Amino acid sequence: MQPDRITPLIPLLKNSVFDLLILNPGPGMLYLTGLHFHLMERPTLLLVALGGKTAMILPELEKSKVLGQLPGLACYTYGDNPASWQGAINDAFQHFCPKANAIGVESMRMRHLELNYIQGALPLAIVQSADLLLNTLRIRKDAAEVALMRQAVAIAEGAFLKTITSIQPGMTERAIASELTINMLRLGSDAELPFPPIVAAGPNSADPHAVPTESPIQAGDLIVIDWGAAYQGYFSDLTRTVAVGKLDPELYTIYEAVLNANEAGRSAAKPGIPAGDVDRAGRKIIAAAGYGQFFTHRMGHGLGMEAHEEPYIYGENEQLLIPGNVFTVEPGIYLPGKGGVRIEDNVLITESGAESLSTMTRELITIPCP
Amino acid sequence: MQPDRITPLIPLLKNSVFDLLILNPGPGMLYLTGLHFHLMERPTLLLVALGGKTAMILPELEKSKVLGQLPGLACYTYGDNPASWQGAINDAFQHFCPKANAIGVESMRMRHLELNYIQGALPLAIVQSADLLLNTLRIRKDAAEVALMRQAVAIAEGAFLKTITSIQPGMTERAIASELTINMLRLGSDAELPFPPIVAAGPNSADPHAVPTESPIQAGDLIVIDWGAAYQGYFSDLTRTVAVGKLDPELYTIYEAVLNANEAGRSAAKPGIPAGDVDRAGRKIIAAAGYGQFFTHRMGHGLGMEAHEEPYIYGENEQLLIPGNVFTVEPGIYLPGKGGVRIEDNVLITESGAESLSTMTRELITIPCP
Repeated sequence: MQPDRITPLIPLLKNSVFDLLILNPGPGMLYLTGLHFHLMERPTLLLVALGGKTAMILPELEKSKVLGQLPGLACYTYGDNPASWQGAINDAFQHFCPKANAIGVESMRMRHLELNYIQGALPLAIVQSADLLLNTLRIRKDAAEVALMRQAVAIAEGAFLKTITSIQPGMTERAIASELTINMLRLGSDAELPFPPIVAAGPNSADPHAVPTESPIQAGDLIVIDWGAAYQGYFSDLTRTVAVGKLDPELYTIYEAVLNANEAGRSAAKPGIPAGDVDRAGRKIIAAAGYGQFFTHRMGHGLGMEAHEEPYIYGENEQLLIPGNVFTVEPGIYLPGKGGVRIEDNVLITESGAESLSTMTRELITIPCP
Repeated sequence: MQPDRITPLIPLLKNSVFDLLILNPGPGMLYLTGLHFHLMERPTLLLVALGGKTAMILPELEKSKVLGQLPGLACYTYGDNPASWQGAINDAFQHFCPKANAIGVESMRMRHLELNYIQGALPLAIVQSADLLLNTLRIRKDAAEVALMRQAVAIAEGAFLKTITSIQPGMTERAIASELTINMLRLGSDAELPFPPIVAAGPNSADPHAVPTESPIQAGDLIVIDWGAAYQGYFSDLTRTVAVGKLDPELYTIYEAVLNANEAGRSAAKPGIPAGDVDRAGRKIIAAAGYGQFFTHRMGHGLGMEAHEEPYIYGENEQLLIPGNVFTVEPGIYLPGKGGVRIEDNVLITESGAESLSTMTRELITIPCP
């Protein structure tokens, strides 16, 4: 059952510069309506006018799907020939909101394609990012959303624990990533993961955004595994780093520093403090261990229907944390040519402090080498 | 080894209205450079100027990945604080192409987010779709690309044949979709599928874009299964419809009509004819069988690094087919409340005719009911 998320939007819209929101397929549309579409070549637009009146412009083919979920929604449709689309879109705007002149969009989803059609239909309208307005709602997860995220975390943790029992020297990064994906699907993850798992071993683990390769893991490697599951459109995003056999002593040192930084970041998190405090709390530990220059990214990012969303956890961010925020805490140290460590949890801000939704062990797991 | 795709672009760019192409993460960037990035909140831009000079604007964090693949590429980078991004992007444009005034973008990828930064850096420049220019290259698959697509088809076919041996009444649509995904991964599909499999049984099969549900399949159902694999970034996209036990006689009739329409569409395909001819060839068969109004979508769409790309196969499309085009042929009949049939193949236009890359049986497969 889709909760009513248009009503809470009405006062925000009224107090904004916008007289019309236009959302294309993505998290905003899903959040407000429960409708899930892929971004394709055919424009699919949700319109929300002042007062909360809504309508959709979409391919005729998709109308029955929309009306199946939202029986009363006004639908303006068009056929297969792209030459007819601008005319159909013009007619829809003419009928629904001919005087709209300040349009808000999701800046990370709205494309040149749709912007062109919108400009064709409403040539005098100004289009601006409505991210702040939409994030005001989405940044505060309600109990139902948190329950879905707990499930996404549980699926990810279960899949990881199953996968590491099958890892052995000689297995490729890609094969480990595939097994992890398979285990998430078997445990009930949505098919659309937040991102394909990263499995990066040995020197490759020193690249924070490495892509799994065909290279086999071997004794002495650290393996950074960064993965997440999806449950009813909500994501988890975790990282653990495991050892293959005995490591170079410095790699144990950096593991310990990252573990302490993760703990410090999670402990610092609470309502009312700037997001940047969480970053600084962990970064301080890594700097004190002498590895400050090798922690090359921010401490974390918000998480929900998107793999990266507000609040972003970087030193300069003075945005205050509030109950219902969910974000990653993911310090790392990356020694070029040698290896890297990252330990990532998903943290919920509560009324009185914070709770890590992920609770799986953070101690170093060593895969035995025969 | 990434082929040189900048050199063939140079004369096209010279003859275009553009003096600069700007691509964000997506198929265009992957095609031209081999670089794969996810679309995230941090702008990542490939610039291609007249004469073929290239550069990237990207997060500092990603620089080593880019230089690992393209050692000589000019990189302009920025840090974690979004407040610094516009300045860094302005400096990059100022250094690389201060006089650019006609910018081409991929309209299905370029977002309001990046457009805003571009406009901030080059306020007088005009931004237009460069889709026609880029599609001139991408629409003609070379032998190496076709080889990757054959592999994507082989993975998809193998996974389907394995999956159907495990289907039995009572299994849910979602469970079948998961098994199919798992089998594609095991057979070597990339983790990022072109789209999550559609498995739609019974009345749900009458919705061409159904999403798999928790409802169990049962005797008398048709199951439409629409899925594709990915291999080194290239996609397959197939559909087969299977029966569970004995069907209502009309469902056999529509199966036969769709099968004949698929055959007619594939047979019509050859170089030099309008794309619309392929649509008409199949649509005629379905109309003659009395089901014209229930074939509610176009005959197909191009396929490659995107699940939908040029050439689009709809009646009004007068674009001439050329060797190297790859597209789907996917007629369907959808009887609301009753069930649907779709049979989809991936067809390559050759010098002398056409070849279906997918060769798996199209005859109706019946899952036995105890």
